[in-house]
Amino acid sequence: MRNQGLGSWPARRARMTPDRVALSHRGDHRTYRDLRTRTDRLAHALRGLGVRRGDRVAYLGVNHPALVETFFAAGLLGAVFVPLNHRLTAPELSFVVEDAGAAIVLLGDGQDGSGLPGRHVPAGDYERLVASGAPGPIDEPVDRDDPCLIMYTSGTTGHPKGAVLTHANLTWNVVNLLVDVPFAHDEVTLISAPLFHIAALAQTLLPSVLKGGRAILEPSFDVARVFDLIETERVTVMFGVPSMFGFLARSPRWPSADLSSLRHLLCGGAPVPMPLIRSYEERGLTLLQGYGMTETAPGALFLAAEHAADKAGSAGVPCFFTDVRLVAPDGSDAAPGEPGEVYVRGPNVMPGYWRRPEETAKVLSPDGWFRSGDLGVADEDGYVRISDRIKDMIISGGENVYPAEVESALYGHAAVAECAVIGVPDERWGEVGKALVVLRPGATARPADLLAHLDGRLARYKIPKYLEFVAELPRNAAGKLLKAPLRARYGDPARTGGADG
Amino acid sequence: MRNQGLGSWPARRARMTPDRVALSHRGDHRTYRDLRTRTDRLAHALRGLGVRRGDRVAYLGVNHPALVETFFAAGLLGAVFVPLNHRLTAPELSFVVEDAGAAIVLLGDGQDGSGLPGRHVPAGDYERLVASGAPGPIDEPVDRDDPCLIMYTSGTTGHPKGAVLTHANLTWNVVNLLVDVPFAHDEVTLISAPLFHIAALAQTLLPSVLKGGRAILEPSFDVARVFDLIETERVTVMFGVPSMFGFLARSPRWPSADLSSLRHLLCGGAPVPMPLIRSYEERGLTLLQGYGMTETAPGALFLAAEHAADKAGSAGVPCFFTDVRLVAPDGSDAAPGEPGEVYVRGPNVMPGYWRRPEETAKVLSPDGWFRSGDLGVADEDGYVRISDRIKDMIISGGENVYPAEVESALYGHAAVAECAVIGVPDERWGEVGKALVVLRPGATARPADLLAHLDGRLARYKIPKYLEFVAELPRNAAGKLLKAPLRARYGDPARTGGADG
Repeated sequence: MRNQGLGSWPARRARMTPDRVALSHRGDHRTYRDLRTRTDRLAHALRGLGVRRGDRVAYLGVNHPALVETFFAAGLLGAVFVPLNHRLTAPELSFVVEDAGAAIVLLGDGQDGSGLPGRHVPAGDYERLVASGAPGPIDEPVDRDDPCLIMYTSGTTGHPKGAVLTHANLTWNVVNLLVDVPFAHDEVTLISAPLFHIAALAQTLLPSVLKGGRAILEPSFDVARVFDLIETERVTVMFGVPSMFGFLARSPRWPSADLSSLRHLLCGGAPVPMPLIRSYEERGLTLLQGYGMTETAPGALFLAAEHAADKAGSAGVPCFFTDVRLVAPDGSDAAPGEPGEVYVRGPNVMPGYWRRPEETAKVLSPDGWFRSGDLGVADEDGYVRISDRIKDMIISGGENVYPAEVESALYGHAAVAECAVIGVPDERWGEVGKALVVLRPGATARPADLLAHLDGRLARYKIPKYLEFVAELPRNAAGKLLKAPLRARYGDPARTGGADG
Repeated sequence: MRNQGLGSWPARRARMTPDRVALSHRGDHRTYRDLRTRTDRLAHALRGLGVRRGDRVAYLGVNHPALVETFFAAGLLGAVFVPLNHRLTAPELSFVVEDAGAAIVLLGDGQDGSGLPGRHVPAGDYERLVASGAPGPIDEPVDRDDPCLIMYTSGTTGHPKGAVLTHANLTWNVVNLLVDVPFAHDEVTLISAPLFHIAALAQTLLPSVLKGGRAILEPSFDVARVFDLIETERVTVMFGVPSMFGFLARSPRWPSADLSSLRHLLCGGAPVPMPLIRSYEERGLTLLQGYGMTETAPGALFLAAEHAADKAGSAGVPCFFTDVRLVAPDGSDAAPGEPGEVYVRGPNVMPGYWRRPEETAKVLSPDGWFRSGDLGVADEDGYVRISDRIKDMIISGGENVYPAEVESALYGHAAVAECAVIGVPDERWGEVGKALVVLRPGATARPADLLAHLDGRLARYKIPKYLEFVAELPRNAAGKLLKAPLRARYGDPARTGGADG
């Protein structure tokens, strides 16, 4: 095959394991032969609609085989896949489709494309489109360094930027993952996190196809359904953000659920609270943690299962083929114990943002280092704890306070379900911390109790001056905590009660 | 690290698993931290001796940690490792060292370098050399496409040629292997096949280091010692040529040996006889087969464990990232059931032979296909049976006879321990087959019995005209049958008895 990219994966898998089930979706099972055949047809059909090498092909919708087929069919043509987050508002979606210059947008079930720029294929026309394509292979030459997809980063501030990821970027990420996790050929991977985010796509779908396993596509995360699938389909692999794993662990079904099929639980997108790690350990399960971002496709750090206990709270060490530096403000390597900005270099690092040379230059150095904007602290063994986004850091009386550290301490109190710490202005100290806490159902703690819990556990200057109970915390579709809306809403210290409120 | 090549692997592993044992050798155990530290020192020391990027560093000797360290240290400097086969004669070795233009030759225990060109480091000086090197990392920039080693192909005819393999070639081979075999992080790999051949180096040492397992280095293949190590060290992975696995299966220890630790047995270098496959199946073990060669680093085809039974005798389907074509004499793709020359393309294919542009042009097409010189036949599912070397093919009365097919049929007779079929001149048919057979100890068959066994199993024109019993068959250090000496010795049909002899 002249196609060295991901578009060739269904064909490569089909010559090895044509009869194994590749995708399961609501009782519909498709083998690798099916996936290959349908992807070939879809690619021919898209070419018939004018899609050429380098063109952008967007997909809007929840997890569905059509999303997967569109991804691989675009790859067969050397076109660039643009997965769209269906939770975005219409103006946000229009911005992304326009910015990507998508030649065509395929719409998933229930997605309304009216108002979106460009040509659309409604969900109802999808099967006709596939059937209209000629059978047989397309052997467009595609190089591993050609762009494979453009994924828009969650963009908590300003407009989203499209991270361009090449076939090589995504392939090396999977190779890094295979070094760390012994995926077998018979894994059953439950994909309930959205495939328009990098983690589900790169950490679950791609390894499943590479190894010839079965991926179960779920349109959303539903606790009862996840337990049902684990038990009836004998799920072996799952990816989730901590809140997803938290929902499972707090469910009434947790104590009695049959979890014996589970082998590898990948948890990412946010720091994993210790009590959650312990809940899973009590069931004999290890939450595999790491650290990454869209721009690094995504894995940069990984914590091996054997160190899940003794290095808990850390995101691990650099993935095998990837390098990570922690850079102090003066540009030198931060010493162990000292925070530094996390820089990442390796074959999984994006070539840049789509049509944003200035934004690219801000984060990618000429010698290949990507600046993450996150702060990390390495211990003597090189295990990196991600302390916070640099912009999240609170500077109080000349001391640096890392909200993640404070949050981690708050999670140690039995009454705390979720929490976030932000910086608020303070006449005396410049900035002080303010904690927003969601209590566990039925818990009766007062703010003063929680602050007393921190006393002695954290240096005094780290303890938030304010602590407020809230009903919920804002998160994006991937479950990532959004601090910008918190700051907008709670950033005025005078608005509500202080520590003694 | 600016070193993207294999020289960086000890450092990459050491940051993940410094305390795991990387190499065991005669009771001496070295962790990944040790391997990294010693490799750094050795690289500094070699640089002190004048070794620079692109220079060739040769090693002559049996499997030993010094061989492994020299391989990685050369990689750290961007130098090119040249492993030498200690079973070669002195003039053959001189030819190779001269041809490679080695800057330095490190000698293993018991190796005499007198007469070899270039500078030598005797085995007795090795530890001093390592100790003389400065500690700390060497961060020479090395690209994945830089040459990593030059490996001389066994060269059954004429002078050996050096196949240049890049860091990328070897890395992609291991990636292909990880797709096919679920190596865990705790594998214990017994390496008793010589590391100066591609199979042991690329299929056992490199995956062991990549995954952070333990490799046990043995200087030679000794049946009793192998059983001892399997039982006491709980070996999980082994590579061997079929004759090695045959020695084990015919040993008196076989029935009672504790083989419960074994997980992955890789068998290659020659077609695997069916009775051998069955012997291992009776112990619940699968011999994993494939097909490859030095020039493809080496894996091209692989037969997954799940098809070991129903596709026995086949070498499998193309490795995931590699493509294989079977090319008919007219240049078209051979149809299923029809033989074609095996062509290989992919990231594991060498850039060429060392300083042999004409030899390179003969085997590498401008569009990247490597001509193996072997013939294969694919079944309807794409599973390729390697029928023979093209030059081994016997043309008898206008019909093509593939010795491997005849040998396979002979192996079906209980009295046959080993066999080889060669072509000998014949006035009437141009060429006819002659079988050389080693009988099992105690077997009493006559040549006519064996030929009668073939009758009805093979078309008449395929049945050898001559069949002779011999005490042993010539094999090279990797256990590969050498037909050239057989032809020289037995190629005259008048010399000894015919079928009725």
